[in-house]
Amino acid sequence: MDASEGAGAQVFDWLDAEAGRRAETGLSRRLQPRSPVSPELDLAGNDYLGLARDKRVAGAAAAAALRWGAGATGSRLVTGSTELHAELEHELARFCGTQSALVFSSGFTANLGAVTALSGQESAIVTDRYIHASLIEGCRLSRADIAAVAHGDPAAVKHALSTRRKSRALVVTDSVFSVDGDLAPLAELSAACRAHGAALLVDDAHGFGVLGEGGRGAVHAAGLSGEPDVVTTITLSKSLGAQGGAVLGPRRVIRHLVDTARSFIFDTGLAPSSAAAALAALGVLKAEPGLPGRVLDNAARLYGQLSDAGFAVTEPQAAVVSVRAPSPEDAVAWAARCAEQGVRVGCFRPPSVPDGVSRLRLTARADLTESEVDTAVKVISATAPRGATS
Amino acid sequence: MDASEGAGAQVFDWLDAEAGRRAETGLSRRLQPRSPVSPELDLAGNDYLGLARDKRVAGAAAAAALRWGAGATGSRLVTGSTELHAELEHELARFCGTQSALVFSSGFTANLGAVTALSGQESAIVTDRYIHASLIEGCRLSRADIAAVAHGDPAAVKHALSTRRKSRALVVTDSVFSVDGDLAPLAELSAACRAHGAALLVDDAHGFGVLGEGGRGAVHAAGLSGEPDVVTTITLSKSLGAQGGAVLGPRRVIRHLVDTARSFIFDTGLAPSSAAAALAALGVLKAEPGLPGRVLDNAARLYGQLSDAGFAVTEPQAAVVSVRAPSPEDAVAWAARCAEQGVRVGCFRPPSVPDGVSRLRLTARADLTESEVDTAVKVISATAPRGATS
Repeated sequence: MDASEGAGAQVFDWLDAEAGRRAETGLSRRLQPRSPVSPELDLAGNDYLGLARDKRVAGAAAAAALRWGAGATGSRLVTGSTELHAELEHELARFCGTQSALVFSSGFTANLGAVTALSGQESAIVTDRYIHASLIEGCRLSRADIAAVAHGDPAAVKHALSTRRKSRALVVTDSVFSVDGDLAPLAELSAACRAHGAALLVDDAHGFGVLGEGGRGAVHAAGLSGEPDVVTTITLSKSLGAQGGAVLGPRRVIRHLVDTARSFIFDTGLAPSSAAAALAALGVLKAEPGLPGRVLDNAARLYGQLSDAGFAVTEPQAAVVSVRAPSPEDAVAWAARCAEQGVRVGCFRPPSVPDGVSRLRLTARADLTESEVDTAVKVISATAPRGATS
Repeated sequence: MDASEGAGAQVFDWLDAEAGRRAETGLSRRLQPRSPVSPELDLAGNDYLGLARDKRVAGAAAAAALRWGAGATGSRLVTGSTELHAELEHELARFCGTQSALVFSSGFTANLGAVTALSGQESAIVTDRYIHASLIEGCRLSRADIAAVAHGDPAAVKHALSTRRKSRALVVTDSVFSVDGDLAPLAELSAACRAHGAALLVDDAHGFGVLGEGGRGAVHAAGLSGEPDVVTTITLSKSLGAQGGAVLGPRRVIRHLVDTARSFIFDTGLAPSSAAAALAALGVLKAEPGLPGRVLDNAARLYGQLSDAGFAVTEPQAAVVSVRAPSPEDAVAWAARCAEQGVRVGCFRPPSVPDGVSRLRLTARADLTESEVDTAVKVISATAPRGATS
């Protein structure tokens, strides 16, 4: 049946009206399926260490699919926990110096689970205003009192903690913010938590594998890994090149998640192939502790050249380098022109940018060569819209 | 640092108190990692068609990991859409007779995305009280007016629709309810939606691959697939043996999800290996249209023998056969005794059971032999707690 006529045909008419409004403001999106081998230079993906296609990592995924089957076959609480999941959890905790870890099917569900299970109606949550969407969804689900304070502002967090109405409190932040790649003041946030009896939950999705000793992440770099009042979430789909997410923290936190986190209990376990890939990638990271530094070097090179060229670009604290565009339409057209010239860059527009400013979002992978970085800068400069440079 | 002393050490003390309460009421959970090859007879997993370990399916997963890499490397909107995802979406839509389909990283995130994007503050949602947790989380996130009505009661749905305060409305239900395996009255629900200008969203996680012509699912069986006011969600992790979820429906619905569903936009794409596995499993299902019938035969055999033995068992409408236990503790001990005797069964306790009644939950896979079903019944009977039979 055609969607425009017959019984029930008008029910979704409102979607077309909304689509029209998005089209007018440059906020329509289109999926662009890629081929397995692309001639494009990729500065858009989050495969920070270039491990997704590493033979040791992809090979481990392939071997695990054959040995364990294609899926986990059930919730982690029924048939979905394999020895692979347990080994991955053990190794992640050991690497980061936490008591325990729990693997979820995505970073998104890990964040949902951690925020909801560690707060609740009896709790206050204080968040940085720019936290990731999955943390925001967790806050919305939590039934806690929510205070979303100014970006990167420990004093505002202190104030919110000291004026809260609930005795229990959880402070929630990204370590590296996904849009601009700036770093949260983790040490100050932890001090604020300590002073006010709050727990600290840090999403280290963009720090793990890139920051800290050997890529142990921003929480480890801040000396907070293993602390009894700190919980970290990471993804297995960025530096580890696989899929999935994990929560790291005190043993009693992880036990609590197993018993209560709805996005853990009511979800099929991570596919064995993805767990095996993450485990293999962690092994590569341990064997090659210089990899994270290459990411930072490439980010610094990108930043230096783009800011020299006059672009409004954020100083990178990790892999993400963000370049402001005059408008959503400009950002889309700019990214499209880069792609035409062989360079794939990310294009972030509302609602993916907390401040409403559209951007090109570049990621400095470890396996980019200096000449590839230079090529990317040349293409970005040559295709820039009017108003992108100062 | 030990979690019991030092700065910040008391912050999570409340978790221990909650853990204590759960232990007292038999509601503690423990992960039990399994090995790749288990001598146990599995009546717990959701691999309904026995395809997770099928060589065609696991082989496709392995080949895809080597060809595409271990991860999707980004959001579906950035670098995370591959030709594999597009092909899977095309084939799922074609198989089920819908205009379009969209693959998510899990059934959980597919449900979150579908419910939130198709409702909102301007909307009423009417749900069956026993819907899956992921749909409930979607409702909580939606900001819609929510009416959760009696289980399996189209009249209650009609009443809620006719007394709603918002003009827009979405009716949300499972097709096959995950705990008891009973079927929603889809035709009546659709009629109620038509009469009251509402859309119908059906989670067909337990129907797809098991019910309908060649396993096209409960929505297809009810003649509702392809209707302009019906949206279906499925998982790739049950009958298709892989990981992931999908939303199927009118083209404009899928476009709307791409533009607005936060659990789609802000999540890394499904791993290529899982997409390939699901695609291969769909191919097997098409080539062997008798597979779903074998599930139903095994479920009927399980049901017949267990009800003859006097157990309180639900008449199965799909793969799930549920046996009531006198208490949560009894259910756990019963399942443990079954495992000792070589039969793995699911054990569902609060909060995984909407009515608070604990159960053994059995799944009748297509690849169980009659003698395996008979063995399972023998073990379940021999290990039953006092009070399990009438």
